[in-house]
Amino acid sequence: MEKISATIPLDHFVSVEDLTNKEVLTLIKRAAQFKKGTISPQVRESLYAVNLFFENSTRTHKSFEMAEKKLGIEIIDFEPSTSSIKKGESLYDTVLTMSALGTEIAVIRDSKEAFYTELITSPSIKCSIINGGDGTGQHPSQCLLDLMTIYEEYGHFDGLKIAIVGDLKHSRVAKSNMLMLKRLGAEVSFSGPARWMNETFSEYGQYVAIDDLVPEVDVVMLLRVQHERHETHDDVNVETYLDDYGLNETREKKMKPSAIIMHPAPVNRGVELQSSLVECDRSRIVTQMSNGVFARMAILEAIIAGRNKAAETSY
Amino acid sequence: MEKISATIPLDHFVSVEDLTNKEVLTLIKRAAQFKKGTISPQVRESLYAVNLFFENSTRTHKSFEMAEKKLGIEIIDFEPSTSSIKKGESLYDTVLTMSALGTEIAVIRDSKEAFYTELITSPSIKCSIINGGDGTGQHPSQCLLDLMTIYEEYGHFDGLKIAIVGDLKHSRVAKSNMLMLKRLGAEVSFSGPARWMNETFSEYGQYVAIDDLVPEVDVVMLLRVQHERHETHDDVNVETYLDDYGLNETREKKMKPSAIIMHPAPVNRGVELQSSLVECDRSRIVTQMSNGVFARMAILEAIIAGRNKAAETSY
Amino acid sequence: MEKISATIPLDHFVSVEDLTNKEVLTLIKRAAQFKKGTISPQVRESLYAVNLFFENSTRTHKSFEMAEKKLGIEIIDFEPSTSSIKKGESLYDTVLTMSALGTEIAVIRDSKEAFYTELITSPSIKCSIINGGDGTGQHPSQCLLDLMTIYEEYGHFDGLKIAIVGDLKHSRVAKSNMLMLKRLGAEVSFSGPARWMNETFSEYGQYVAIDDLVPEVDVVMLLRVQHERHETHDDVNVETYLDDYGLNETREKKMKPSAIIMHPAPVNRGVELQSSLVECDRSRIVTQMSNGVFARMAILEAIIAGRNKAAETSY
Repeated sequence: MEKISATIPLDHFVSVEDLTNKEVLTLIKRAAQFKKGTISPQVRESLYAVNLFFENSTRTHKSFEMAEKKLGIEIIDFEPSTSSIKKGESLYDTVLTMSALGTEIAVIRDSKEAFYTELITSPSIKCSIINGGDGTGQHPSQCLLDLMTIYEEYGHFDGLKIAIVGDLKHSRVAKSNMLMLKRLGAEVSFSGPARWMNETFSEYGQYVAIDDLVPEVDVVMLLRVQHERHETHDDVNVETYLDDYGLNETREKKMKPSAIIMHPAPVNRGVELQSSLVECDRSRIVTQMSNGVFARMAILEAIIAGRNKAAETSY
Repeated sequence: MEKISATIPLDHFVSVEDLTNKEVLTLIKRAAQFKKGTISPQVRESLYAVNLFFENSTRTHKSFEMAEKKLGIEIIDFEPSTSSIKKGESLYDTVLTMSALGTEIAVIRDSKEAFYTELITSPSIKCSIINGGDGTGQHPSQCLLDLMTIYEEYGHFDGLKIAIVGDLKHSRVAKSNMLMLKRLGAEVSFSGPARWMNETFSEYGQYVAIDDLVPEVDVVMLLRVQHERHETHDDVNVETYLDDYGLNETREKKMKPSAIIMHPAPVNRGVELQSSLVECDRSRIVTQMSNGVFARMAILEAIIAGRNKAAETSY
Repeated sequence: MEKISATIPLDHFVSVEDLTNKEVLTLIKRAAQFKKGTISPQVRESLYAVNLFFENSTRTHKSFEMAEKKLGIEIIDFEPSTSSIKKGESLYDTVLTMSALGTEIAVIRDSKEAFYTELITSPSIKCSIINGGDGTGQHPSQCLLDLMTIYEEYGHFDGLKIAIVGDLKHSRVAKSNMLMLKRLGAEVSFSGPARWMNETFSEYGQYVAIDDLVPEVDVVMLLRVQHERHETHDDVNVETYLDDYGLNETREKKMKPSAIIMHPAPVNRGVELQSSLVECDRSRIVTQMSNGVFARMAILEAIIAGRNKAAETSY
């Protein structure tokens, strides 16, 4: 019988880079055990969470909701468009309110980078904060589910060759992924339009043309062309992007037999990935979505453990 | 003691016309038994449904929600306006996502006719699909609750005279109702502005002027003037519509003593129906709304039975 | 051991002024007992409530939701922007629908004054109505939580000096508060821009310039400048309002040592209240938000008691 590792206590979950490799692996293993059904934690009654999504989301928002329900956490709905946000109330005062009402966990997505800093340092806000994506900053729960999906496939990170391909400039998951993958022992390379590369990325891996990269790697991790974050739409030619920089069927045939395709979704079908490949055998895109629920259960469990620990030590 | 009929297993519920008369009557009887409280099904734990309404709705949306709660089904909220739909994600990819997250039932209303075809044939989508209204196509749960309401009143369909009156052209419930009522043995007639009649309707019944029709029938089933589906509003004169084509107090007085008024609602008070008649003695409009919850419980129960059966046979 | 007072049965909760002083004190005491955890009522199963907020709200909406969840009431979500309201359905027909679907309690905020009158006199609507704010009319649950917060602080109302300061003209809580506070024995004064004063207020207290008022009172109850209800924005100079009429640090230092600051929130930080004072020692603004949940539990409990009583007497 597989050893069940205990969770780790966390006060907040705002950046995956703050965690040690061991902590990341613990969360991944807990997530895998939730997936297998080998653990089913008892959450104390009347634990309330609020999900505050100030940017559009399906996967992240709904998988946190599913994870909360599976853990028995009560959810307070929050719809920014009908809240006092519309009367000019700030994020800080909104979270302060939800904290005063008795919610203990706030999962937040906001367009402002590092929005969470003022929240976790407030003397009045008692909520634990989970970062569901901060502008073009980070997206730590996505990073964790990506790592979980790779670990599930290969059982390790050491020496894995991983290509991160596409809209590196606007992606909030690319930066966390390159940093964490390197730290965990994988070898990262980049591709996509060269103008989206950034000098700081060279610390983590090198740029390789897509046709040279695809046959060599274990994972092709595609990024979404984030039309909504581009200043002008015309910097991407959606007619030619797939053949110039994306993964089409021709390139897919050149991948190693065991190599997998990943994408955080939503996919621009026919832009960064040929539509027929979304649900192909080597695609792990649907698996990533499923794993997201379990990764978020592991995050929430760690937050609850952190709150329980803090409650004990305050006596 | 009344015999309790077992439910029928369904994979999806997208069109009432796909069901046999016997299956329809089974669903109606189960709904009636939910209403009486003579049955209270045990749903297995952790069964998740998502309600995806891409067109405005109060009755259908909220009565599915109520039915789900009464059956112990966990609901994942879905608000299209804050989802990745806004980033251009398709209905197909949205349902694929919700399926990957672990929802087993998706109740969907969409403006596209037969939107469900690609969903129920997908190799990757594992959700059962319930059609909550497809454009001007069908609205099978509304048809079922209408049939339930008539059956509750008369105990049979044979030889009942039923008038379907009003915006036949844009109604998604009229077509199912005329087909099913005829198949179940009722005699259907139509009224309303003649330009909304359609040659295909003559297969099911004939057009009769409203004043000739009203005194003859057992049920006056009014349809909503669907302003929002008309290309121009000026084809309906709301000042004269009631007296020209609608049910006003004068006509209501000429109805048979036992005859009832039905309307799927929302009612345009004063247009197709005089406002004072909405809550009158022979109106079953409030009853229809109440019955909608029980009819949808019967549909959901049949879907769950279908999923349980499929799970068994897959061993 | 403190005596636990029984709740009072209410049919609806639309105006706090309809209650006797004794009834108000009973609700306040029940709320305090919910806060202490000395009572935990058993709500019968399958009791459904709907929260219909047609005006933006965070505190009121979410604290009713929290109170409902804590009492074990099932919540049917209602999002006006995706409902049949958008097809022109009226508030009356919407509540009639929710009643027909089986919801027993409707918490409603609407911009129309006394919107509830037609609802509580309808022969067809079976819901109990709770007023979550009617235009510039009343906001009785806010009044109750304000009274609870003062009572929690001082243990009585007799002879307390209370300043109500700010946008008296557009506030729906000011009128209830001045009436109830006077009736309960407190001494009320007003301040803020004189043009927002109203002759009818002089029945309850007198206008005093802010600098004369602040050192004298036990409670400074600030009101939000309701930009969204003003016909033009330029009647308030947000640059000078704080120093002319608001509570800044200089004035706060002149308050009695035991005096407290209240505000229904959201606060326009830097307009009616200096930002640094929102979370200061003598501020009870966060406490008011927390108390709101318990005050609303007491209201809901009284409504449920009223429904249970009505059900018994109908036999």
